[in-house]
Amino acid sequence: MVQYVSLGINVLQAIGRYSQMLIKVKGLVASRRSRYQQIDIVDTEDFGRVLVLDGLVQSSEYDEYYYHESLVHPAMVFHPKPETVLILGGGEGATLREVLKYRTVRRAVMVDIDEDVVQLSKQYLTSWHRGAFDDARAEVVIEDGKTYVERSGERFDVIIMDLTDPYGPEVARELYSENFIRRLYSVLADEGVISTQAGSSFFYPDEYRALLESFKKVFHHVDTYSTWVPSFGYACNFIVASKIGSLSSLSEEEVDRRLRERGVETKFVSGRVLKALLSIPTYYKALPSTLAAPT
Amino acid sequence: MVQYVSLGINVLQAIGRYSQMLIKVKGLVASRRSRYQQIDIVDTEDFGRVLVLDGLVQSSEYDEYYYHESLVHPAMVFHPKPETVLILGGGEGATLREVLKYRTVRRAVMVDIDEDVVQLSKQYLTSWHRGAFDDARAEVVIEDGKTYVERSGERFDVIIMDLTDPYGPEVARELYSENFIRRLYSVLADEGVISTQAGSSFFYPDEYRALLESFKKVFHHVDTYSTWVPSFGYACNFIVASKIGSLSSLSEEEVDRRLRERGVETKFVSGRVLKALLSIPTYYKALPSTLAAPT
Amino acid sequence: MVQYVSLGINVLQAIGRYSQMLIKVKGLVASRRSRYQQIDIVDTEDFGRVLVLDGLVQSSEYDEYYYHESLVHPAMVFHPKPETVLILGGGEGATLREVLKYRTVRRAVMVDIDEDVVQLSKQYLTSWHRGAFDDARAEVVIEDGKTYVERSGERFDVIIMDLTDPYGPEVARELYSENFIRRLYSVLADEGVISTQAGSSFFYPDEYRALLESFKKVFHHVDTYSTWVPSFGYACNFIVASKIGSLSSLSEEEVDRRLRERGVETKFVSGRVLKALLSIPTYYKALPSTLAAPT
Amino acid sequence: MVQYVSLGINVLQAIGRYSQMLIKVKGLVASRRSRYQQIDIVDTEDFGRVLVLDGLVQSSEYDEYYYHESLVHPAMVFHPKPETVLILGGGEGATLREVLKYRTVRRAVMVDIDEDVVQLSKQYLTSWHRGAFDDARAEVVIEDGKTYVERSGERFDVIIMDLTDPYGPEVARELYSENFIRRLYSVLADEGVISTQAGSSFFYPDEYRALLESFKKVFHHVDTYSTWVPSFGYACNFIVASKIGSLSSLSEEEVDRRLRERGVETKFVSGRVLKALLSIPTYYKALPSTLAAPT
Repeated sequence: MVQYVSLGINVLQAIGRYSQMLIKVKGLVASRRSRYQQIDIVDTEDFGRVLVLDGLVQSSEYDEYYYHESLVHPAMVFHPKPETVLILGGGEGATLREVLKYRTVRRAVMVDIDEDVVQLSKQYLTSWHRGAFDDARAEVVIEDGKTYVERSGERFDVIIMDLTDPYGPEVARELYSENFIRRLYSVLADEGVISTQAGSSFFYPDEYRALLESFKKVFHHVDTYSTWVPSFGYACNFIVASKIGSLSSLSEEEVDRRLRERGVETKFVSGRVLKALLSIPTYYKALPSTLAAPT
Repeated sequence: MVQYVSLGINVLQAIGRYSQMLIKVKGLVASRRSRYQQIDIVDTEDFGRVLVLDGLVQSSEYDEYYYHESLVHPAMVFHPKPETVLILGGGEGATLREVLKYRTVRRAVMVDIDEDVVQLSKQYLTSWHRGAFDDARAEVVIEDGKTYVERSGERFDVIIMDLTDPYGPEVARELYSENFIRRLYSVLADEGVISTQAGSSFFYPDEYRALLESFKKVFHHVDTYSTWVPSFGYACNFIVASKIGSLSSLSEEEVDRRLRERGVETKFVSGRVLKALLSIPTYYKALPSTLAAPT
Repeated sequence: MVQYVSLGINVLQAIGRYSQMLIKVKGLVASRRSRYQQIDIVDTEDFGRVLVLDGLVQSSEYDEYYYHESLVHPAMVFHPKPETVLILGGGEGATLREVLKYRTVRRAVMVDIDEDVVQLSKQYLTSWHRGAFDDARAEVVIEDGKTYVERSGERFDVIIMDLTDPYGPEVARELYSENFIRRLYSVLADEGVISTQAGSSFFYPDEYRALLESFKKVFHHVDTYSTWVPSFGYACNFIVASKIGSLSSLSEEEVDRRLRERGVETKFVSGRVLKALLSIPTYYKALPSTLAAPT
Repeated sequence: MVQYVSLGINVLQAIGRYSQMLIKVKGLVASRRSRYQQIDIVDTEDFGRVLVLDGLVQSSEYDEYYYHESLVHPAMVFHPKPETVLILGGGEGATLREVLKYRTVRRAVMVDIDEDVVQLSKQYLTSWHRGAFDDARAEVVIEDGKTYVERSGERFDVIIMDLTDPYGPEVARELYSENFIRRLYSVLADEGVISTQAGSSFFYPDEYRALLESFKKVFHHVDTYSTWVPSFGYACNFIVASKIGSLSSLSEEEVDRRLRERGVETKFVSGRVLKALLSIPTYYKALPSTLAAPT
């Protein structure tokens, strides 16, 4: 028998067009309507602290390392010597944290449009950034990523796009356009590597494929993989593209060697795990027209 | 077509055993785990500020007057001259506010078990209490209502029970027992009147009837009525019992005269409305065994 | 502690713009995508059988009499001798059932746009229509109400609008326009009375007021009242307009006399209840600009 | 701005103790209260047809192959020559379907406690079983798995446990006990392999570890892996145990050779994918006490 039960305060986030995830909140930390979006930070039972933008979980204390390590390390380890890194988005500071683990990095520029996200993250998401914002090699720019790229003229070894979903809130949509990807190509150094999260291929196959196509039109070498991120409610897809070759050419041992040499300690990604991620087919629905196939 | 939609942060509260209400939150105000319960104060789109205890809406800015006026005025207006009033629960201070509108009142004692609720209400629910806590006639006691009644020895003209639902959290259950109602009878002055909220007769008919029976065993005169409270998701039942006669004996004009004489201004309850409330049958499901009938 | 709990199959219906109601389903009865809408009939724990159109509860087995009696009887009892009745919508057949209780009625035309709703209701909602569709006085027309009114040329003593909400699905919106209300005026006989459900004044105050204004522009006499309908999650507003006078001019005794003379037995509405309903103020949010006031 | 939106009929299933998943239903197929559980079959937007037992998704049309292939093929491919197979649970018939793909199989016994699940699956889940129930090698027994194992005396090459979650409904709990696993060991032939789904290590780490410990106490060789199953809302863990060695000793090429030789075509599992699954660490929350580590 169902008991007298009040679920109380919850986050209801979209997983797909017709699916939502309901996450029980146990405490309210901060809440602000910024110029760009609704920002909420809450403490939850299943995921610890969670950053929510416009109702969507951006990352959670208990599983953010699955997401941030999957986003950052394949690209960073693939580059022969990543010294300059551009992060688009990434307000929590965890992408910056992972990037700064590389002792090769001299300069990491993080460009986030929403000052309030960055400020609230600094204050309340310390287990995410762990002081990364104070690293002398880090520069935080509050600006639209597109504007920054246009005006800066600087070139980077690695670019990491840590934005809301490609099919998500308006604010980030343009940054996923083929035009802008082409612009990013031109901003990458000769051996440059770019990485982006790409949302869910299972729930948004058309949008995912369109984004992948855009990358393939611009870059010769494009790899994909996905990692289940529990607080997202789905396996998050990632796209890594480069000017120099395919990520899958890197051996398990070479990945581990590079991580070690560059002083990087990880909890999830390793040579073995990266090979595994690249071996799992892209997740699709078993519709007649979209049978699962390796990309 | 359903859009890409994230409902974001919501309160999910039980309405019935198998029904819930989902209320969109637009901002987080305060959150605390007290010794007795989870306390959350949030700003919502449809109801303004809301106090939530253990996941259940206690009252909301935009509709609390329906609840608090329905709870307080029938009892207060019925008493020939209410001078001393005991409020059990009522942490928001709105029941106290309504009681203090009566210029006949010399002393109003509010007994709430949870200091944190009272403290957070003082700070964040100003549109509820509107300074009632500072009225010289008011005394706030932080104590279990049962203990207070046992030890104080004081008698009151009117007692108002403003507690969580009779079928709700454990903390208030005992205060709805026949034993305790009998105790309250003994604490009422000779012309005493008692009022309580009684939850939903539609969703919890057995629990409602049991409570009503308990009152009928103890008091000769018992009246009932209900008022829809939008943020509760149901018409809330009320029980008024007295030593002196039936509430329905009071004419519309007499109610209005008393309100006027006692200096009470209301937004919802009037002589006409009170007569109407008493004329609407108790809400029940149209099951074979529970056909709607006037109580 | 929250247990391992799966809420299972539920109906999530909008109550307001930012509020939903979650109703536990215990069995699936029928489901069809008609030309106009998604039709689902389910058995629920709290409300028995429920008809759901485009995700919105239309009426439920355990409380439909609150809705249908409130919609039908005030208008029917007010008319001096209702012989011909037009029902717009009302696919479940319960409005027809209530209308046919009047032995004065010679002809009741029910016009519903969606044949599938009527057919599924006949088959699965027998406790709603209870044979009303087979009454010799009843005629069911499958047609857009607007078209029917334009082409039929017939005049009616009473018109009852039993449609989806005025702010709801597109399909019914035009039937609530001032133009169409004016058209209905012209179709009403000289002593004609019209009744409509009007959604929720609390959650949709602007839409409710606009509809009320339209009726007031067309009719000299307009009355309003509301009844809490548990499965709707709100007190449903009703508007009754007539060419002959105000509903409130009818005494309690006269209402009861007419019901008796016309052979009508009811579970909820009576002379006393109708007077009460007319005495309760319209439900509004306590915003500065929308303080509750009798309409 | 949030639109007027009714989510309509949905499945709300528990993902974790404090998380739920909300899946939009577009049509109702069948619904029955069996002796053991509530059985619902619905058509959903995101997952096609779905079988729901006691509110929990068992499998969905669009992603069941991820689950069933992950459950069946690692164990079946690992056994040198699987001729007799016992399936506990598996009412949909999809586990049976995958097992029967092996031309080595002479006899596959499927034991499900709930006749209604099997009967409804036969009727409505044809894309699951695809005629497997009619295969001459298949025998379906309606009985408690425990009772069957006790009384049959038969030994099997492969046992596949396709039951509700180890921490789920009471009905299956005992089948996950160390005692019963020990019993299954004794029923396995000398080169026997056993496979089970093991729920979510992320959301139920203690329950997962307890089950894993039980297997490790009974079997010398135990392997684990997980596959994200979109309609479950989590990566489902699997445990494969054997009397003959570790699953990871099988090379990628050997897996592919065996699949080919045994006539098995798959959509998801292959030698490469199996190696990858075995390389991804078990999913855990990043709590101080439960840092992610390979099992």
